[in-house]
Formats: sequence, structure tokens, C-alpha cells
Amino acid sequence: MHVAIALYPRFTALDAVGPYTVFAFAPGWTVTFVAATAGPVTDDAGSLTLQATAGYADLTEPDIVVVPGGPGTVEALADRALLDWIASARGHARWTTSVCSGSFLLGAAGLLDGRRATSHWGWLDQLATFGATPVGERVVRDGDIVTAAGVSAGIDMALSLLGQAVDDRTAQAVQLAIEYDPQPPYRCGSPATAPPGLPETALSLIS
Amino acid sequence: MHVAIALYPRFTALDAVGPYTVFAFAPGWTVTFVAATAGPVTDDAGSLTLQATAGYADLTEPDIVVVPGGPGTVEALADRALLDWIASARGHARWTTSVCSGSFLLGAAGLLDGRRATSHWGWLDQLATFGATPVGERVVRDGDIVTAAGVSAGIDMALSLLGQAVDDRTAQAVQLAIEYDPQPPYRCGSPATAPPGLPETALSLIS
Repeated sequence: MHVAIALYPRFTALDAVGPYTVFAFAPGWTVTFVAATAGPVTDDAGSLTLQATAGYADLTEPDIVVVPGGPGTVEALADRALLDWIASARGHARWTTSVCSGSFLLGAAGLLDGRRATSHWGWLDQLATFGATPVGERVVRDGDIVTAAGVSAGIDMALSLLGQAVDDRTAQAVQLAIEYDPQPPYRCGSPATAPPGLPETALSLIS
Repeated sequence: MHVAIALYPRFTALDAVGPYTVFAFAPGWTVTFVAATAGPVTDDAGSLTLQATAGYADLTEPDIVVVPGGPGTVEALADRALLDWIASARGHARWTTSVCSGSFLLGAAGLLDGRRATSHWGWLDQLATFGATPVGERVVRDGDIVTAAGVSAGIDMALSLLGQAVDDRTAQAVQLAIEYDPQPPYRCGSPATAPPGLPETALSLIS
């Protein structure tokens, strides 16, 4: 299986590297970071730069597409080359997926019309703009479109897809290999469990 | 606060990018990837390349040091420049930390003698080689030395340190910003919960 992860300026690093690490540990799988052209792409904080090793034209038939989110999605919504690649790659891929606000790019590429989809809790409702039905779950599958909630949710999505693509045992082995037995220090990772006012503070960090 | 994350060939991406993302979202914090010299460093799978933007000599007084793990630790144990930088930076840092097998590099730098420390479950016992007391917990603090278990445990460690360095509210806001409300698809992320035989399969993926 060949996984293509799209990069664009001001993506959020963990959105991309969570799924990357899961898929890269899957035996025999290949993961490639793609962008308009091969070269460095810098994240939202401006202090992490990942190399894209392929341009869109080099990787037209991935088996899985992953589109990360981040503040850069706002500008990327007008990036016709990226949106066209997503729409075209989707024609070959078994799953076209997103993490966080990456779902807005799937929407702008025309993939969410009539679909159930999720996104970061801060912008979930806005998915309706693209004809989607917003769903407040961590991973939402609707046919070949799979969307994950904010940032860290891409890890859960990738493990789940790996289990479907190969088998549960392989995904379990990767989960154990990355010792994914999470013990968050607080119980506030979703608005449902967060104390009053915390969502506003959290949004101020990422907007 | 200035966080320095050390990179070396064949590190594991999520070990570095989990803590990176947490600290990079902390208001006013700076995170820098350092290596022997500034430039690209490629991970264990060979398909992710991160830019180090500083050499060791450029960043001698970080407030927090993070040393990721990965198969590359085996060669890095003999990397005198890296080990000397870790030992020297520790003199200034409030916390010197590791994720996964990164704790072996803390050990080789002489930082674990007589300390409680953790590592990836697959190699935990070997920490005793460095005079450490191996502890099978997700995050272990012993004074200024903080070690995390395998790969994904760096996220928990970083959130916990952020809470200590600033306050709980700030760390909670970052946890909510990255929607860290994990829902692993399987209950097998540690050897204690994994089905028989899975640890051997998992180790075959990362050895």
C-alpha cells in the first residue's frame, strides 16, 4: 500500500506525523509526503520543516490519501493544484482521508457533498458549507471518505484503517510498537469534558 | 521557554513531533530542532526528513531538552558530539527528557546513574546498564530527568511538563487544542494488555 500525505504551508505537524508513523511501521507499506513540488514545507508554528519528496504529478495513484489540517487550510482552500490533486487521487485511492481542518480541503475538492464528516471541534459546524453532515465523532467513515477530528485524532484513524486494510493483528502490533496506551494528564481533550471557558482559551492558541 | 529537540539519523518521527506539537502550541514558547549541524535529518523509515535549524554550538542553553528514540539510537550511543551536547545542555536546562529509546542516550551521556527512568517496553530492562532503575510507567520524573515510554508517550510527557512549567490551565488548553481525547481502536498499547505473542510481532516491526 502506498500512502500519500499532502503538505502545504502552515499545516499542523502532528496531523501529518501521527498517521505517518502508524503507516510507516506497517510492514511493506510506503508513505510519501507530496506537495506542489518536491521540497521543504514549513508548519504552522514556523519551526518545523518537512521535506515533500514528490510533486503532485509524481504521485497520481496513491492507495490512501491523507490531508492534514492547520491554519494554512484557509489559504489552501484557494490552492487549485492541491484541490485538483485531491479530487484526482481520490479516483484511485481506496480511502481519501483528512485530519482536523484538512476536511475543509476535502470539502473544497468536492468530496464531502452529502457525506457524513468530522473536523476539529472548533470548526465542525462549518463543514455544512460543503454539503456535508457534520458529525462530532473522533473518526467518521462514509464510504471511501474518512475524516478524523482534531490533530491527535489522526493516530486513531490510521490505526483503524490499517486494521481494515490488512488485519486487526497487524494494526494491534503497530499500536503496541508505538506504545499507544495513552494516559493524558487531564480529562479535557474534547469540549464535552473541558471545564467552562477552556474552549475559548484553546481556540485562541490555534486561530 | 526554549525547547531543544535533538535529531539524529533514524530517529522515530512521532517521538520528536508529539512533544514538538505540544510545546509549539504553548503561548510564547520556542521549539528548535538541533543536530550536529543545521540541515536535513532522516527518520527510521527513510521517508520523513526534518530540518534541524541549529547545530549543537548554536543552542547551548535550552530550557528543556528532548531526546527522541528510534533504531538510530544504537549508532548514536557512539556519537560523542551528541552525548556531550546532552550532558552540557542539561547543566542549563530545567528538564532533560527523552522519549522511547532516547533514554539510552541520556544514559550514555551519564545522566541516569542512580535515577529512576523508563523507555520503550521492549528495551526497558537494559536501562540498568547505565546505572538506572528501570520503571515501567508511562512518564517517569526523577529530579531534572524526565523519561517517557515508547513513541506516543512523548505527548503525555510534554503536556505534563507544560502543566508544571506554566500552569494546569495552559496545558489543558493545549490538550483541548490538539483534541487529545484518545480513542485507540484496540486495547493493546502496552504489554500488560496485549494478547499473547503480540509483543514479539510488534518488536519485529521496529528492530
